[in-house]
Amino acid sequence: MKIGIFDSGVGGLSCLKVIKQKIDFVDMVYYGDNLNNPYGSKSVEEIQGFCVNIVDFLINKKKVDMIVIACNTATSVALDLLKEKFPNTPILGVVHAGAVMAVRETKNKKIAVISTPVTAESNVYKKDILEIDPTCEVTQEGCEELAPRIEKGWHDDEENLTILRDYLNTLPKDIDTLVLGCTHYPLIRPEIAKILGDKILIVDPAEELALESLKELTAMAKKRGIELTKKEKINIDYCISGDVKTFEEVGGKFLGEPITTGHHPE
Amino acid sequence: MKIGIFDSGVGGLSCLKVIKQKIDFVDMVYYGDNLNNPYGSKSVEEIQGFCVNIVDFLINKKKVDMIVIACNTATSVALDLLKEKFPNTPILGVVHAGAVMAVRETKNKKIAVISTPVTAESNVYKKDILEIDPTCEVTQEGCEELAPRIEKGWHDDEENLTILRDYLNTLPKDIDTLVLGCTHYPLIRPEIAKILGDKILIVDPAEELALESLKELTAMAKKRGIELTKKEKINIDYCISGDVKTFEEVGGKFLGEPITTGHHPE
Repeated sequence: MKIGIFDSGVGGLSCLKVIKQKIDFVDMVYYGDNLNNPYGSKSVEEIQGFCVNIVDFLINKKKVDMIVIACNTATSVALDLLKEKFPNTPILGVVHAGAVMAVRETKNKKIAVISTPVTAESNVYKKDILEIDPTCEVTQEGCEELAPRIEKGWHDDEENLTILRDYLNTLPKDIDTLVLGCTHYPLIRPEIAKILGDKILIVDPAEELALESLKELTAMAKKRGIELTKKEKINIDYCISGDVKTFEEVGGKFLGEPITTGHHPE
Repeated sequence: MKIGIFDSGVGGLSCLKVIKQKIDFVDMVYYGDNLNNPYGSKSVEEIQGFCVNIVDFLINKKKVDMIVIACNTATSVALDLLKEKFPNTPILGVVHAGAVMAVRETKNKKIAVISTPVTAESNVYKKDILEIDPTCEVTQEGCEELAPRIEKGWHDDEENLTILRDYLNTLPKDIDTLVLGCTHYPLIRPEIAKILGDKILIVDPAEELALESLKELTAMAKKRGIELTKKEKINIDYCISGDVKTFEEVGGKFLGEPITTGHHPE
């Protein structure tokens, strides 16, 4: 069996990193659509078009058994459409996982979600969280600058730290849970934690997404009578729509290990 | 809407404590079957009989909308039968929640479950965990003496600590996750943590059970078009099959607050 994971670029590799820790016994295909990056500046119809093409490629060319959308923007804009277009393949998105995790972790039911402006404006986390627990209070705040700065290679200089501090200062003071609603943010989780202090719990949706993927995968294997067993090493096939070299260089930081086998989708 | 929760006695109150923190906006009925306690020494058929009667009472007399089995023994022996007999009411059990949580938390996939001997012999946790992740290694170890000693009122005396230490010493040394597979054990979680040290993560299934109950409840409310809103104070109806006074006295310690309104089921 095989899992297909996609994102508009390198961000989803922070999800892949967590997923492959949990699911260390099936091969994976990662599709990085850096040719069309960033999705945030594209129209909904454009993003939906990219996503349909990618999922079609993963299912029909790469023969994956399930799809994980490791991109908040793509999930908020295209998940329902993809489920409709590809009804025979399970499709999981990062947002629902993050919502579940936030509801589990919060004690005072006051949650904030930080993300890119497009995800924030969609209010997709708020909707998902309130669907699970309508008595929660949810704040979604977008930040334009954070993701590109992380992608460029984050340094704890005064300019970066001021932007991060100002951004986190816009959040309500009484939240006890913060959701990292952009796959770039786990890379600066220590910096965020340092500013927030230890009273606010930080949620990386990738952790729950990994568990959901695992549950879906094993349920599917059971239904099909396939026995899942440990592998010496899993193979990850990196399909990169744009510049491969840049993807490998920047992506290595997101994955936490070097990537050397990237190639254009064939 | 109303949730029905039951256990063979006071143990399930440690679950109720966690559930009512998370779900603070619907009333609940707690059925403590201390007349037939402990379930561990009864036959499977007997336990199934008790459970069917309790659930019938909760659904048809108390008009609850969902059932939570806050008892590991009852879940391992009667969950499937109850689902079959009462197909129109969602029924959740503590075991599956604990299995999900253990798979989420473990990093090295080596998990141990401590419980009463009956739950241990059923291997129900092992089966549930392996269904989610077949590459996990699971050890289930039972202990006869721990639950009654906790119910009597635990003291950190040499006799108790020796039993606890000896019991935990039977577990494999390389586990990184320990599941509290008996609802009595959360009461001595600090003592267990002290012996295990900080390298082993302790899982209380009640935490996941609370979230599963919340998800089930809100999904049901949505389907029925019911709006769930905050309440000043939720009401808990304590139905006690045996001695009410003892239940209230011991139960208060499990719930973390006094119980004064216990009564026989009518």
